[in-house]
Amino acid sequence: MLPDELVERFRISDGDGFRLKRFDPADTFGLDIDKSEARDLLQTGVKRLRDLQERLFAEKRWAVLIVLQAIDTAGKDGTIEHVMSGVNPQGCEVTSFKAPSSLELRHDFLWRTTCALPERGEIGIFNRSYYEEVLVVRVHEELLAKQGLPPDLIGKDIWRKRFESIRDFEKHLARNGTVILKFFLNLSKDEQRRRFLARIDEPDKNWKFEPGDLAERKHWDEYQRCYEDAIASTATGHAPWHVVPADNKWFTRLVVASTIVDRLERLDPQFPAVSDEARKAMAKARKVLLAEGGKRKD
Amino acid sequence: MLPDELVERFRISDGDGFRLKRFDPADTFGLDIDKSEARDLLQTGVKRLRDLQERLFAEKRWAVLIVLQAIDTAGKDGTIEHVMSGVNPQGCEVTSFKAPSSLELRHDFLWRTTCALPERGEIGIFNRSYYEEVLVVRVHEELLAKQGLPPDLIGKDIWRKRFESIRDFEKHLARNGTVILKFFLNLSKDEQRRRFLARIDEPDKNWKFEPGDLAERKHWDEYQRCYEDAIASTATGHAPWHVVPADNKWFTRLVVASTIVDRLERLDPQFPAVSDEARKAMAKARKVLLAEGGKRKD
Repeated sequence: MLPDELVERFRISDGDGFRLKRFDPADTFGLDIDKSEARDLLQTGVKRLRDLQERLFAEKRWAVLIVLQAIDTAGKDGTIEHVMSGVNPQGCEVTSFKAPSSLELRHDFLWRTTCALPERGEIGIFNRSYYEEVLVVRVHEELLAKQGLPPDLIGKDIWRKRFESIRDFEKHLARNGTVILKFFLNLSKDEQRRRFLARIDEPDKNWKFEPGDLAERKHWDEYQRCYEDAIASTATGHAPWHVVPADNKWFTRLVVASTIVDRLERLDPQFPAVSDEARKAMAKARKVLLAEGGKRKD
Repeated sequence: MLPDELVERFRISDGDGFRLKRFDPADTFGLDIDKSEARDLLQTGVKRLRDLQERLFAEKRWAVLIVLQAIDTAGKDGTIEHVMSGVNPQGCEVTSFKAPSSLELRHDFLWRTTCALPERGEIGIFNRSYYEEVLVVRVHEELLAKQGLPPDLIGKDIWRKRFESIRDFEKHLARNGTVILKFFLNLSKDEQRRRFLARIDEPDKNWKFEPGDLAERKHWDEYQRCYEDAIASTATGHAPWHVVPADNKWFTRLVVASTIVDRLERLDPQFPAVSDEARKAMAKARKVLLAEGGKRKD
């Protein structure tokens, strides 16, 4: 696992003055290890995460919401697979938010994600999230027109108001026992080019390539601006953003795993204490079971 | 229907300095009519409401959320029955919030009502609501302990924070196209006594009486204080409270019907305009249908 000092360098707890260009997508902070070393390090983290999640699940006090946002090919799916596969799926749910359904569009923009929020004791992972409402919808304003809003409510300040709604919503969740961790996987435009080419050139990866992908790439700069504004407007102490270098997959995964482990360790969930009463009941039950006799297991 | 000036007298658009005792539960504002006149007046309102709801449903721009809160026997169910029965149930949904389920308790206190919010074009009626979280839960603090919150998050300022969450939530809804109308049916303690006695003495009403009802009545003054604080803390221009005299059922229903009609009239929903293109397509379809020939209907 990465040391705490390093984990902290990716965390934005106060969005004021945030500039995305200060973060290098290729940075590995001097960490010079080979693939198998990285894999071993990640496995340590995944194991630690499994233990922490078991206690979180048993304690049933806190819910954990993990938001993953990124441009195409930045590695959201791979990160979920490699970081979370060790965790007991009972108590960990991934929800992917694609284009909203017609039912979802008939509600306010926070509705569909709210209904999918994790319960106390659970980890909920949002693969894309309500942040799409200030990203793809902002880059493609024609999507806003399709949301059925009364026209009077669509003003120039709609993005500022959406940020405010999101901040209020996250504050409410935090106050009521949801720990929020938000990740932006920060990919370079050049690395995206290489990954798209790989998807086209390697037959096993062809299924991942969609014809519309290059059209979205044309909006690269707008997306960067929207991500920067979203992070600047919604990074807070109780719902921090983490800007994770995404040009090296092994490093991305290490950062995400280390960040989640670090946060859960500070949360320090505990198995519920067994009361004296419960202990006596168990002692009694033990006697009853033993008195039944029964065959010994070989 | 009641005149606009009268409807306005029940509306609290700014909670500052709100005092419940200034509102007389028996007031009928000098309206002196007999039962059949009241019924006719209400029917006019119900018919107007049906027409407005049809346009709301066709326009599909605004959602309408009606929150009904009151002490036992104040007439929530009867009001819903008599005011809303004329409305097309496709486009109008009533959700009653009783004691929360174990699933609901594992989420933040706004979760279960959020999932039941009305869609654009629909009227959603909450028979009790998230306001129970600052009413019954405040009067019976032992309920708070059962909500599974991390103990660190239960401070003395929890009610203030809950009011803030509710204000933020309602502001978000209003900004995104939900019209919010909140009603407090204001019953006197003496009239509740009469209504409980009627439930006990009249066999047809026995099923409505629950043994726990009198235990709640003992907390009358605390409930009044909590209602007052809730209204004072959450009455705003975009989510006003209406304090409705509830000692006379016919008057309660007239006030609620008039208030909803008044708000929908100001909203003024319209049937979607038919485009020239659609008009041409209809003319074409008409010809095709006529060319089919077919028997004349006798």
